[in-house]
Amino acid sequence: MGYKTDAEIAQEAMLLPIEEVAAKIGIESSALEIYGNYKAKIDESKLDYLKDRKDGNLILVTAMTPTPAGEGKTTMAVGLGDALQRIGKKTAIALREPSLGPVFGIKGGAAGGGYAQVVPMEDINLHFTGDFHAIGAANNLLAAMIDNHIHHGNELNIDPRKIIWKRVVDMNDRQLRFIVDGLNGKANGMPREDCFQITVASEVMAILCLSNNILELKEKLKNIVIGYTYDDRPVTAGELKAHGAMAALLKDAVKPNLVQTLEHTPAFVHGGPFANIAHGCNSIAATKLALKCADYVVTEAGFGADLGAEKFINIKSRYAGLKPSVAVVVATVRALKMHGGVPKNELKGENLEALEKGLPNLLKHVENMQNVFGLPTVVAINRFPQDTDAELQLIEDQCRGLGVKVVLADVWAKGGAGGVDLARQVVKLAELESKLSFAYDLQDPITLKLEKMVQKVYGGKGIVLTPAARKEIERLEALGYGNLPICMAKTQYSLTDDAKKLGRPSEFEITIREVKISAGAGFIVVLTGSILTMPGLPKHPAAENIDINKEGKIVGLF
Amino acid sequence: MGYKTDAEIAQEAMLLPIEEVAAKIGIESSALEIYGNYKAKIDESKLDYLKDRKDGNLILVTAMTPTPAGEGKTTMAVGLGDALQRIGKKTAIALREPSLGPVFGIKGGAAGGGYAQVVPMEDINLHFTGDFHAIGAANNLLAAMIDNHIHHGNELNIDPRKIIWKRVVDMNDRQLRFIVDGLNGKANGMPREDCFQITVASEVMAILCLSNNILELKEKLKNIVIGYTYDDRPVTAGELKAHGAMAALLKDAVKPNLVQTLEHTPAFVHGGPFANIAHGCNSIAATKLALKCADYVVTEAGFGADLGAEKFINIKSRYAGLKPSVAVVVATVRALKMHGGVPKNELKGENLEALEKGLPNLLKHVENMQNVFGLPTVVAINRFPQDTDAELQLIEDQCRGLGVKVVLADVWAKGGAGGVDLARQVVKLAELESKLSFAYDLQDPITLKLEKMVQKVYGGKGIVLTPAARKEIERLEALGYGNLPICMAKTQYSLTDDAKKLGRPSEFEITIREVKISAGAGFIVVLTGSILTMPGLPKHPAAENIDINKEGKIVGLF
Repeated sequence: MGYKTDAEIAQEAMLLPIEEVAAKIGIESSALEIYGNYKAKIDESKLDYLKDRKDGNLILVTAMTPTPAGEGKTTMAVGLGDALQRIGKKTAIALREPSLGPVFGIKGGAAGGGYAQVVPMEDINLHFTGDFHAIGAANNLLAAMIDNHIHHGNELNIDPRKIIWKRVVDMNDRQLRFIVDGLNGKANGMPREDCFQITVASEVMAILCLSNNILELKEKLKNIVIGYTYDDRPVTAGELKAHGAMAALLKDAVKPNLVQTLEHTPAFVHGGPFANIAHGCNSIAATKLALKCADYVVTEAGFGADLGAEKFINIKSRYAGLKPSVAVVVATVRALKMHGGVPKNELKGENLEALEKGLPNLLKHVENMQNVFGLPTVVAINRFPQDTDAELQLIEDQCRGLGVKVVLADVWAKGGAGGVDLARQVVKLAELESKLSFAYDLQDPITLKLEKMVQKVYGGKGIVLTPAARKEIERLEALGYGNLPICMAKTQYSLTDDAKKLGRPSEFEITIREVKISAGAGFIVVLTGSILTMPGLPKHPAAENIDINKEGKIVGLF
Repeated sequence: MGYKTDAEIAQEAMLLPIEEVAAKIGIESSALEIYGNYKAKIDESKLDYLKDRKDGNLILVTAMTPTPAGEGKTTMAVGLGDALQRIGKKTAIALREPSLGPVFGIKGGAAGGGYAQVVPMEDINLHFTGDFHAIGAANNLLAAMIDNHIHHGNELNIDPRKIIWKRVVDMNDRQLRFIVDGLNGKANGMPREDCFQITVASEVMAILCLSNNILELKEKLKNIVIGYTYDDRPVTAGELKAHGAMAALLKDAVKPNLVQTLEHTPAFVHGGPFANIAHGCNSIAATKLALKCADYVVTEAGFGADLGAEKFINIKSRYAGLKPSVAVVVATVRALKMHGGVPKNELKGENLEALEKGLPNLLKHVENMQNVFGLPTVVAINRFPQDTDAELQLIEDQCRGLGVKVVLADVWAKGGAGGVDLARQVVKLAELESKLSFAYDLQDPITLKLEKMVQKVYGGKGIVLTPAARKEIERLEALGYGNLPICMAKTQYSLTDDAKKLGRPSEFEITIREVKISAGAGFIVVLTGSILTMPGLPKHPAAENIDINKEGKIVGLF
């Protein structure tokens, strides 16, 4: 039997008109701004009738430390949503929008897979409703206004060597990582070193995702620090009078998008901050709207629970007043064996020894969700045909020690039907009380916040600060930014800052190399290694195989 | 009495649902891809029932040589459309989409003005239906694939110094005019000199506007010459396997957009090639669709008739098999007096002497439309309150000498009602036969084409070739590109290549500085001066005054 590709499954799907999808969760047509038959933006000003409705349960899907074996976190989130709908719950899903650039790099969708996908998949993976293009335009308008200000006399005394605002393009384009611009004489700007990032890495993206509405968005844009003067005073977007026009460009982008899964579960796909240097989850506006409409809202946080779920709670939940009811930690037997030291091409066949060695990684993430953050937690095993009963039993036994249940799911092949057991367990846990707690307090000094994070969340013993990082921390505290939450930029492949240290390391220290303010988004980015904010394309990019066929249909996209 | 701003008029307008606008010209709802209530893309595959309908009359609105006094060509095109509808004709308008970047530079709409506007004006001037963002993404995907190819071994032997493909951003950003990219070591590309253009200057834009459908678009993309090898062989986008993915990105952008005027006349606003280095008019797909639907289609060609209308005929009409029925040449008394030597701040008060001195400019354009291109022609005077009867009489007398009627119009203040006389004259002329002729034949050698253009259209005596231009002409002819039409890049402010020579100069020569192939679009760009393809922002950009007010509405946009 030949398997169908994700694209084939998605293209064959029968979609419901978006009005019908919206009606399932009480959104009337008058609140829809339609983009074709199957996409809509929601105008929340038309939803006053929902204001007093009790919020639904928020289900946070996160994962063990990711490996090249793949864990299928988005697929699990979509399948869980479908399963909840299947058992009769009023359900919505709240996911990030995929980034355009990577679509042309290495094959791989970002809207789930198999029979657990969000559709229309092509639109979602290409321009969708234009949000990212709007974010790119707003980002680049500010960049143009900065250099234009310098060109026309530089009244604000901006030091061209201390501009931290970067231009963006939604493309994997390594050629733009390091450039010199403003060349060719005084009619053409001021020569300086510069960089491009991919659009999702823009602070505008983070701001959009942390704003409840357009006016709050404008305020945050105003606070963006774009760089420093010659005498080290921070310069803001507000001082350049850029925030109003930026907000105008983002007027529609700030509105949540509604689409559906293959099983017609409503899906709010909105926002997509870079999970490495921003908080990496769906917009506050979309999550909150979903909670107003549905009784169960399944959302996802990027990478492993040490990065994604940690930021979801310490940044997003804190700013939005959100309290997840249940945490789902996704794992696979294959990935656990990799954490036990088995290379990717030797994962076939039972290997209880490796599994046992790798399991502490999962257990640490489960402990974090349950004990550090206080959430009722379940482990969801994304099941593969070759997983043996003994392997699955071992996982179950060890999780039982933490009082956590393990549920098998196969939503890739079976859609919602493959996630019904998981859905029932989630519903059960949602009835328990969750007592959300944060890993640190906002009023803690920055270094204490970092130490608490390393000790509580990563399981290490402390931090090492480079002199540059120490100096910047002092400066930010002096400037009054000390009470912001931390956005940790760390490898997703290890609980430590070394991608090669798998499993559950201990007694390690995390080296803080660089500290950067995102004053608009409202967090301090702490870099523990070199984080690339502009990906490159592989030798043979996926773009080479993407095409329009004779019938005018897109082919080769995943 | 206080005048209302364009924005106020547009924001107060009552719009019809786009389905009703479409129905006026026989487009059924099933062919509409809706973007909100007032915008739609048209899926032409659903319009088979229109196939055998006789094409309507195409009315080409062009102008005298533009001056800083302003001529109001787009406003006139919109008002004429409304007037034709008002006198009972089944009418549509076909216009270019405005570019995003300039919106933030110097105040000024690009969707008409006063009571002759296309709406929703804010959307049209900002992201609209995302066409330009898609064009930018396709352009930049090709750019990334070029440098990625070089980075990964450069099998095609591309000379990094001879890449002519440029990245784009839809922003006025002078800082990006001249850059060095690929810096910081071998992991980050190959260092080389590079440039950014504004999105409308992309050859992808020109291609989109010259394509009848997505498959033709893909073929043209494949033919793009991105640069040359070390041994001077042209390298195409097809060789990089980029055209399929580029076409996928443009799948929706290629579909014409439908909006409406303030008087609910259907308006196809689609495509916007840079009028200086491309053909500068609405897409072939949109113009042809409009002609299938309506009995009268009013379209506009950028700048004066020597640039816009010339390209409309020699490039667009030739590729599309379009034959305009009538040419409307727009002029103002004020602009004619400027051509007669009066500075802008001294235009008040009757000045018959200056007017008489400036009139030959208008007459030359009229001669071109009528005698060179063979179109029944009318002069439309965009009337200002201070124009005197004697001044208007003088214009009428001189045009009568060419057998051409002059009609006064005031569509800015009165909408379609101000253009009824013009509409009636247009209908009368449309009943005459037009015998379209071109300024040159495609099989003429390139230099002969250029000479014919200068002598027939500009009224000069010949051309001067720089050695570089002569060499490139020889090379392009040797490569087999000699039979393409010419896209002349010349100042719009003079019939000559010197912006300061107003009126109707004679005995001048045009210096050809540079020649460049647009093999995808299918024309040879001939540069006669330095053409800036990346504008800058003024000291106080319009962006500083654009804002979102407390009600969430955009203010300060025009």
